[in-house]
This record gives sequence, C-alpha cells and structure tokens, in this order.
Amino acid sequence: MPATTPDPDFRLSLRVYWEDTDAGGVVFYANYLKFFERARTEWLRSLGHEQERLRAQHGTLFVVTDTAVRYRLPARLDDQLDVTVRLVHAGRARMSIQQQAWRRDGQESMLLCEGTIRIACVSCSDSAGTFKPQRIPISILDAICPGASTEQGHG
Amino acid sequence: MPATTPDPDFRLSLRVYWEDTDAGGVVFYANYLKFFERARTEWLRSLGHEQERLRAQHGTLFVVTDTAVRYRLPARLDDQLDVTVRLVHAGRARMSIQQQAWRRDGQESMLLCEGTIRIACVSCSDSAGTFKPQRIPISILDAICPGASTEQGHG
Amino acid sequence: MPATTPDPDFRLSLRVYWEDTDAGGVVFYANYLKFFERARTEWLRSLGHEQERLRAQHGTLFVVTDTAVRYRLPARLDDQLDVTVRLVHAGRARMSIQQQAWRRDGQESMLLCEGTIRIACVSCSDSAGTFKPQRIPISILDAICPGASTEQGHG
Amino acid sequence: MPATTPDPDFRLSLRVYWEDTDAGGVVFYANYLKFFERARTEWLRSLGHEQERLRAQHGTLFVVTDTAVRYRLPARLDDQLDVTVRLVHAGRARMSIQQQAWRRDGQESMLLCEGTIRIACVSCSDSAGTFKPQRIPISILDAICPGASTEQGHG
Repeated sequence: MPATTPDPDFRLSLRVYWEDTDAGGVVFYANYLKFFERARTEWLRSLGHEQERLRAQHGTLFVVTDTAVRYRLPARLDDQLDVTVRLVHAGRARMSIQQQAWRRDGQESMLLCEGTIRIACVSCSDSAGTFKPQRIPISILDAICPGASTEQGHG
Repeated sequence: MPATTPDPDFRLSLRVYWEDTDAGGVVFYANYLKFFERARTEWLRSLGHEQERLRAQHGTLFVVTDTAVRYRLPARLDDQLDVTVRLVHAGRARMSIQQQAWRRDGQESMLLCEGTIRIACVSCSDSAGTFKPQRIPISILDAICPGASTEQGHG
Repeated sequence: MPATTPDPDFRLSLRVYWEDTDAGGVVFYANYLKFFERARTEWLRSLGHEQERLRAQHGTLFVVTDTAVRYRLPARLDDQLDVTVRLVHAGRARMSIQQQAWRRDGQESMLLCEGTIRIACVSCSDSAGTFKPQRIPISILDAICPGASTEQGHG
Repeated sequence: MPATTPDPDFRLSLRVYWEDTDAGGVVFYANYLKFFERARTEWLRSLGHEQERLRAQHGTLFVVTDTAVRYRLPARLDDQLDVTVRLVHAGRARMSIQQQAWRRDGQESMLLCEGTIRIACVSCSDSAGTFKPQRIPISILDAICPGASTEQGHG
C-alpha cells in the first residue's frame, strides 16, 4: 500500500451515507463508481465546464467505455473519503483517468479503492438518441491537458 | 394489520438484492419508491403502454407529484416481495395510485410498506426540457380506467 | 410558493450528479429521500452524534416510519441544492422532521420539494436483527430539542 | 461483436426501469454492476445457496475485489436484458466470474456490456465488522464447480 498519497489533478472530499451502504455494513461496490463520477464532474467544473450545459446546448456527452477497479478495503457509514482524479491520457475523442478513494484516519490515509476509467466523447443530438463518437471540444481539451489540442492526437 | 391481501389492479413480484439494502441490514427506505415505480411501469406495460416509447415519440412523461408512504416492517436481503398497484382516481391530467409491498412468509403475507402516489401527465417536448401539464392520452386513460375518458373529468 | 426561505435547524448544500438523474432529464423522485437523509445525518453530526457509532456500539438505529413528500419543480444535473431540516416534534421514541429542497437561482431560491419525515428510534442489538422501539438516547434528545428530556414526553 | 450468444452457467432476464437510467437517456454505467450482482445472486440461489442466510447464520460474505468492465452499447428505459454468469475460476477463497449483458432485439441479441468480476469469501463474524479471508464453504464450492473441493486449489 502506498505510504504517501499521490499527486492528483483533483481531489473531492465526500461523506458515506446510509444510501451508499449495504447489508454487509460497508459501501456497496458499485457505488465507488458514483464517487468516481462525482469527482470527475467536479474536476471538469473546476476547469469551467458543466456537463448539463454541454448536454442541453451541444448534445455532447462523456460516456464511460471501460473501467478497471480494484477494491482493497471497505468504507463504512460516516467515513470521510477523498476521491482523486488524475488524467493519464487525452486523445482526440477519448481520455483515460486514474481514480482513487482514500479514507482519512487521523494523520494517515488508507487507500480503499482505485481504478482506471476510460471515457469517450459522443454526440447525442439526433432524435433517435444514438451516440456517435466526436472530438473532445477544444476548450475542454485545452483545460484538462494544456497543449494537447495542438499536438497530433491518437484518440 | 390486514388479515387478507387486497385486490389490486396489478401485482409485481420482485426480489431484494444487495443494492437495495443498507448498513441497518434492511431495505433502504427510499428504495420502496423504486419498487413502487417498477410495479406501476409493469402495470402500464401489461395494458399495452411503454413509457420509453411515450417519451421518445411523444415527449409525454408521467411524473410523481405527491407521495405518502408508511413503513411498517423491514424487508431484508433475499426477501421475495409482492408489490401491488391499485388505481384510486384518474382525472384528465392526474391519477392517484395506492401501492403496497408484501412479503410472503409461507402461507401468510406480511404488509411491509404502503403508500399513495399521485402522478401528473406532462409534456417535455420543448428544447428547454420544461414540463407542461397535459391530458393523459385517451388510449392510456381508457386502458387504466375504462369509461373514464367519456366522463367529465376533474383532473 | 414561499417568497422567503424558511428558518431551518440545519441546511446542507449538495450538488446534483448523473447518478441522481433519470431519463426524463431530472432528479429521480426517490432520490430526494436520499438528499433528505443526508441532511438529517449532517444535522445530527453537527450536534455531535454519528449514526455509525450509535449502530456499532449501541445497536441503536433511527428508522423512517412515515414520509409525506410533495414534488413541486424538477431539479437537473449540476443544480446546486440546499436541503433543510426543521424538527417539528420530538417525543420519547419518535420525532417528526420537516424537510425542503431548494435550488439557488442567482439571488432567488426556488422550492423544489418538501416533506415531513417521521422517525422512530429502534434497537437492533439482538442476533435476529429484529427492530424494537426504544427511547431516543437522552444525549441526542437534549441536543436536538433542549429541555425535551425533562418534560413528560408523549413519543 | 459475437455472432452467437455464449454458453453461460446462468442467465437472468431483467427489465430497465427509470431508476436505472440517467439524464443521458441510458442506463447509468454503475448500474450494470447491480445487474451483474443480481445475476450472481440468482445463480447461487439456483444452486441452493442464499446469501442472507450465509451472512446471518455464518457471518460469511462474498465481496468483490476486482472488476474489469467494457461498455459497448447503451441500454435504455424498457429494454429487456439478459445478464449471464460464467464461472472462469474457483480457488479455495476466491472465484472469478465472466458476465455479460445482452439486449434482445427480436431474433438477435446485442452485447451491451461485459466484464470479469473477482470475488473473495470473507468472514465478518467479529464485533468490529472486520473482513477476514476464509475458504469458500465446501457445499458452495461443490455446487458451483463440481469436483473442485477435492482438488488441490490455488485460491
């Protein structure tokens, strides 16, 4: 287990509530994906981009295409978690993000769960609601990965 | 507690899974509203009406406006529940539905939870996504409450 | 609709995420009960009481027995909500709480959803996990309703 | 995309409800993990093993330790899905399961989502609720993988 916390691009603090737990007394495993998603959303917001506006005005969505998650230790009701976001790759239409959930225990932090989430940018503007791959908007690409939009990407 | 099960318009059988429970070892209270919604959806489907088609083709949604729910006994992981639907009122743009969740215990059934759910029919077809009240489509009104569409409703 | 926000005992600010929404583009109706529960939990925490400790150390749980909720306006992805808690009654074994969800729109706030939640205090310390009514611990009663524990309650 | 459906150990049919969708109009990505869990639970039940009894009577839980999931096509409200379970490895204390979610489209089926879920068997019988690795009960191991319990496992 890492002795030190990593150096993420963004960190969201959140609390574990009854809704997050299951009858095993711990956070239900699917709910870490909710926590990861909240952190990605706040990371984008911190860079000036709100997904509801993207969706309503441009029909642009970020959708998850792949997840690989390792569950190390359980979280429980009332735990305070730090969920991190670290961009590991941004292409023209895709990005890959490493995420971790840590529990603060006084001076120390315990790594509870970590994963890699791959995201695609899609358009849903047609009436049938079909998702079509599209380029990540330049303004977002510049915000998450300065300089990337001028390189030759391999999305 | 009722000695006999009521005579509902529809009955959906469902199982309690890990996702439904919380750290108290029982079904999380908000999740009965999911169970109630599933039963209403299957009731409409049994009458020939699918909500996704209504939404995608006509921009018509049924939205919940009021709930009054009484929680009597807890349900637990692996419990088999029967969730009932009974229409108590249908107006031009609104309906009121009584719902119950029962647990089968051998020959007997225990009433766990019951409530009254009020529903409004709305249109969401404008680009802003605003909900505007609209009449319940005649075909649905005729299906859930034969004869109602020819009466003078007070929605 | 109220022209001014009420004067609650506690106020929790929260954000609407993808997990909270449904295909209607708005917050799924059951999820307001999650928001209400988060606010009650933070209200108790602000008074010095953590429910996980209560559960693990004393087998004491607060369970919801009745809800009456009115849905007025929908919330959407990225909305910032204020969820309020106002204690309206505390007896020996029960309490009744009024809760509201407001959306900030610049200078104004819009009331989206409000309800009354009745809570019972139960013990789950036996091995079968059966819930038995019990008195609200004095320390909690004193915290949420100063003076109540010395009155003759009618819980 | 596979031209034929695989040959799983178990198949659960389920319906997509409002609760499963998000504002993108499709099933929220975390919810496939719920669908996968439901299918695993019904697979164990079909073999005679109920997890609530395991938990309440023996303090034995199956917990997810790793997931790798690929999202191929979105599911929508009212879709009928088939979720499959195929055991790919069973050791003394762990098992690995391949799962898929398919949508029926008339005669054809479309693969929407697939993943590998690794599970560990743990004991939670101490009062602190700590999870300790334990062997998979022989009766379960024999049921899911006949002959495995008499081999020299490498859990």
